[in-house]
Amino acid sequence: MTEQAPNPIEVISEHASFGGVQGFYRHASSSIGLPMRFSVYKPPQAKAGPVPALLYLAGLTCTEETFAIKAGAQRVAAQLGLMLIAPDTSPRGTGIENESKDWDFGAGASFYINATAQAWAQHYRMEDYIAHELRDIAAEKLGADPQRLGIFGHSMGGHGALTLALKHQDIYKSVSAFAPICAPSECAWGRKALAGYVGDDRSVWAQHDASALMAQARTPYPQGILIDQGLGDKFLVEQQLLPERFEQACAVAKQPLTLRRHAGYDHGYYFISSFIEDHLRFHHRNLQAIA
Amino acid sequence: MTEQAPNPIEVISEHASFGGVQGFYRHASSSIGLPMRFSVYKPPQAKAGPVPALLYLAGLTCTEETFAIKAGAQRVAAQLGLMLIAPDTSPRGTGIENESKDWDFGAGASFYINATAQAWAQHYRMEDYIAHELRDIAAEKLGADPQRLGIFGHSMGGHGALTLALKHQDIYKSVSAFAPICAPSECAWGRKALAGYVGDDRSVWAQHDASALMAQARTPYPQGILIDQGLGDKFLVEQQLLPERFEQACAVAKQPLTLRRHAGYDHGYYFISSFIEDHLRFHHRNLQAIA
Repeated sequence: MTEQAPNPIEVISEHASFGGVQGFYRHASSSIGLPMRFSVYKPPQAKAGPVPALLYLAGLTCTEETFAIKAGAQRVAAQLGLMLIAPDTSPRGTGIENESKDWDFGAGASFYINATAQAWAQHYRMEDYIAHELRDIAAEKLGADPQRLGIFGHSMGGHGALTLALKHQDIYKSVSAFAPICAPSECAWGRKALAGYVGDDRSVWAQHDASALMAQARTPYPQGILIDQGLGDKFLVEQQLLPERFEQACAVAKQPLTLRRHAGYDHGYYFISSFIEDHLRFHHRNLQAIA
Repeated sequence: MTEQAPNPIEVISEHASFGGVQGFYRHASSSIGLPMRFSVYKPPQAKAGPVPALLYLAGLTCTEETFAIKAGAQRVAAQLGLMLIAPDTSPRGTGIENESKDWDFGAGASFYINATAQAWAQHYRMEDYIAHELRDIAAEKLGADPQRLGIFGHSMGGHGALTLALKHQDIYKSVSAFAPICAPSECAWGRKALAGYVGDDRSVWAQHDASALMAQARTPYPQGILIDQGLGDKFLVEQQLLPERFEQACAVAKQPLTLRRHAGYDHGYYFISSFIEDHLRFHHRNLQAIA
């Protein structure tokens, strides 16, 4: 980790893993205006030069540690030479009233957007943080190839991955998700978050809704999008995820989509780890095609 | 999970994982005299009949969840048809004074022995629990083949695996360890634990010391023992692990030992997950040779 003024990156811990390094870092974020944490898996190939990198966005209540600990992704990332970068799921310690009152709004629940509602607008600028600040850090300080970035995530982070990919096709060349919130305008989690962060105007919500964004697009990812969804996922049953909305929008937009429905799998990391290898190989193929 | 009187096993949670099931369970333990928890990964092959099984013993402060969440072992277990069983690291809620005062003694730190010291002797009977009660549960209720059991573990649990294997060669046909406490009579952790659980007689300590047990043996595991040790492990530097003592004892006992020393790796689960596949394949080979 190169440390240099004016934006030093503090090492929290680093651990040898599959010939590479799993690290946890903290830095003063200019987008967020507070310290932010992220994790990085640096594959052995990173010693030789820039490598393709995947941003992973985690779900409600998770942190920058969750993916590194639970997904079992380092093995295949080391094989393929992929860097894995996972930011925290929200700003922390903003001092906003009730920031930590709810598990599905506020701390740990940023929904990866730039908030405009008064209380949240100052610090909750996660889209700026991830798409710009963290991209620059990845390229300039971590050794990622900025031309070969992909993005994926889980649940709220699947929503984040799909929407950030659709908003920033110039940045993210490959996108996939596990059990994503596919239509936040239409589910309880999403409505609460969008109303809280950007107000009640549904036309604004549509700018942060993967299914609405896709409905307005034309084949933004010609190499396809991969989504895995467990059929034993209680949040699927509760209509929080709505993958069929995204499936319909992709059909209209002529966006190739591989939506795999897996009998028996639930919403957790035992589901994610079972299929993580497929996602890494999918992104690797897509990013290799760019090189 | 078959549930039957008089010893029902309560399901805490079950999760589809790599075509099998990762489960967490609780039962009233007759050896411990209290409820105990354990985790089981049941590979897809278990649907067809009894499968070989590995007991995994975790280290200080861990629980029955640690291995299932962090080691990334389910993928290869599913490929090879191995069941993975991980008990909690101690009795819980005994009411013994100061049970939870220290992180390296008492709760979370049983050292996998039968205590004889007065305060601990009633509940801290982990050797009986693992070698007998949990073996019977594995065979009768989980679908493990009792003729094809192996044992492995990490740190305190590596000590547990090596000592239980040397005491019960009739039960465990294969043994390996990650960064085990190899000579507890000679290190600070071990001396504290042994003095507390079995008193000050060093001849009694030798019955729970892998290096001392091996020194008295003759090639107990002719197929070999596998140990992985990180050279960036601070507890190795602090002389808590002492793998060289076990190496010397194996040489004297003509016990084949593969002790791999890995530059840069530390004591944690990023180390374990990097080498877990090798351990599962090692045990699978050994247990297959029995069939």
